[in-house]
Amino acid sequence: MQNFELTILGCSSATPTSKRNPTAQLLNIAERFFLIDCGEATQIQLRKFKIKFQRINHIFISHLHGDHYLGLPGLLSSMHLLGRTNELHLYCPAELQEIIEVQFKHSQSYLNFKIIYHPHQYINNDLIFEDERVEVRTIVLSHRIPCCGFVFSEKPLLANISKEIIEKYDLPHEQILAIKKGEDFTTSSGEVIPNEKLIVRKLTPRKYAYCSDTIYDERIIEYIQHADLLYHEATFLNEMAARAKETFHTTALQAAEIAKKAEVKKLIIGHYSARYKDLQPLLDEAQSVFKNTILAVEGESTVVKN
Amino acid sequence: MQNFELTILGCSSATPTSKRNPTAQLLNIAERFFLIDCGEATQIQLRKFKIKFQRINHIFISHLHGDHYLGLPGLLSSMHLLGRTNELHLYCPAELQEIIEVQFKHSQSYLNFKIIYHPHQYINNDLIFEDERVEVRTIVLSHRIPCCGFVFSEKPLLANISKEIIEKYDLPHEQILAIKKGEDFTTSSGEVIPNEKLIVRKLTPRKYAYCSDTIYDERIIEYIQHADLLYHEATFLNEMAARAKETFHTTALQAAEIAKKAEVKKLIIGHYSARYKDLQPLLDEAQSVFKNTILAVEGESTVVKN
Repeated sequence: MQNFELTILGCSSATPTSKRNPTAQLLNIAERFFLIDCGEATQIQLRKFKIKFQRINHIFISHLHGDHYLGLPGLLSSMHLLGRTNELHLYCPAELQEIIEVQFKHSQSYLNFKIIYHPHQYINNDLIFEDERVEVRTIVLSHRIPCCGFVFSEKPLLANISKEIIEKYDLPHEQILAIKKGEDFTTSSGEVIPNEKLIVRKLTPRKYAYCSDTIYDERIIEYIQHADLLYHEATFLNEMAARAKETFHTTALQAAEIAKKAEVKKLIIGHYSARYKDLQPLLDEAQSVFKNTILAVEGESTVVKN
Repeated sequence: MQNFELTILGCSSATPTSKRNPTAQLLNIAERFFLIDCGEATQIQLRKFKIKFQRINHIFISHLHGDHYLGLPGLLSSMHLLGRTNELHLYCPAELQEIIEVQFKHSQSYLNFKIIYHPHQYINNDLIFEDERVEVRTIVLSHRIPCCGFVFSEKPLLANISKEIIEKYDLPHEQILAIKKGEDFTTSSGEVIPNEKLIVRKLTPRKYAYCSDTIYDERIIEYIQHADLLYHEATFLNEMAARAKETFHTTALQAAEIAKKAEVKKLIIGHYSARYKDLQPLLDEAQSVFKNTILAVEGESTVVKN
């Protein structure tokens, strides 16, 4: 089974605390390391959790509030200083290019690697990344400034065939591939063996949806439906629902409502307001609506199984 | 005696490590809180060390390499979010204004306090800040990009007069002030009492010099001479003197040479390369030339006495 693992690097909202850093996450799907948002001090968090940051080739920035991107110039600079030459892809608001370039211009830094910018189009289901294993699409989130969430999906995986079956029917290479892709097999005597009798187990492609920052918005549900794991911001407790609405954020209860309505398998909440020293009430509130909720905790990883 | 205390917030050079943050220092002179450089995650360090960052009204940025200013947008943003209305003075390279403004423009942030920019003129001994207690002047440092060091000096303090003396000569208020400023006193019988017989003790004004980043450069000596405390970068051990020269940095040995030639009272070294896990060799090397050397250690404070 290929890796599918989310590691939390930062789980605080706008103002970091001495215990919690601003938003950043690392998603490993089949050894592709996707960095999702990059709040201040993300490079320090990566070092602390012993994650080799030169393995990151794709960075996704949801929006241009500082707590979601201020760690980027420092990370790019360190990647450069430590000898990076591989190109780096940035999926982000178009304006981020100006922010980054003005800084490198004034520090007279000339990076040894190329940054390829992929500006957000703010279209739901927009395919922004694809390779043979993974695809990534945007979700339009409703926040104070333009903002995108991301859905990371495995592509359908090829099924496995046991050695026994291969030997029994003396399957040639191209037949094995066809069966793995779902085809039936016709023996030399004309007997049709249905695909499900040939394959060992077909793994269900996994899906991770990232939604931060956003007001409570049911329009996102169709794009995150049945996700194996949903990260949804939960800045406040529901007693502060008015404040959440006013600042275009979500409460823990509302995040759980979204998870329930989208019928996801698991919910992870984060982006906690600095006012909450103890996060248990946020968890309790979310679990009262959606049982399979966990807290985003820095340095902790969640493995998504299929 | 008024406070004169330096607290180290970050002591790493360009690439931070899991143990050391990039450069930032807080200098408290008579309850004026001066922030000197502001590397990434400085706001997190301030919180960690329980320093109320709204008390900072003056920030000094030496140059525009990221490890000296990348923490600034996040700090300004948090100051704003936490309700700051007092104006903030920024003594910095002129280009920093563009860097900051482009970020706030794209995040659609409108700060509730005013930033007053004081762009560096890159002139030695340039008086950039002054109030009734303190003055700050720039030193031109020789680095890869334009860079300034800073000298923070107490203004001459008024001497104390004992109650006994005041009663003995029945001194009126204006006479007390004149004596505190250094004048002699003539009694009604015409006797001249010299100033040194009237005052208790005249405190020597204290001086802190901050020199980061710079190549070994004896031209700075005249501006930092007799400082009570000198911070001088010491990025490398002297075995890497060639690398230090090439990158416009200094070795621990060279920093100590500067301290010795400038006849300062105490040297504090920092801006360590990430390659040094153990800092003892850097300290040993500096102390071999200048005994009264200490290491910059995050969270530790040095009180300057007079």
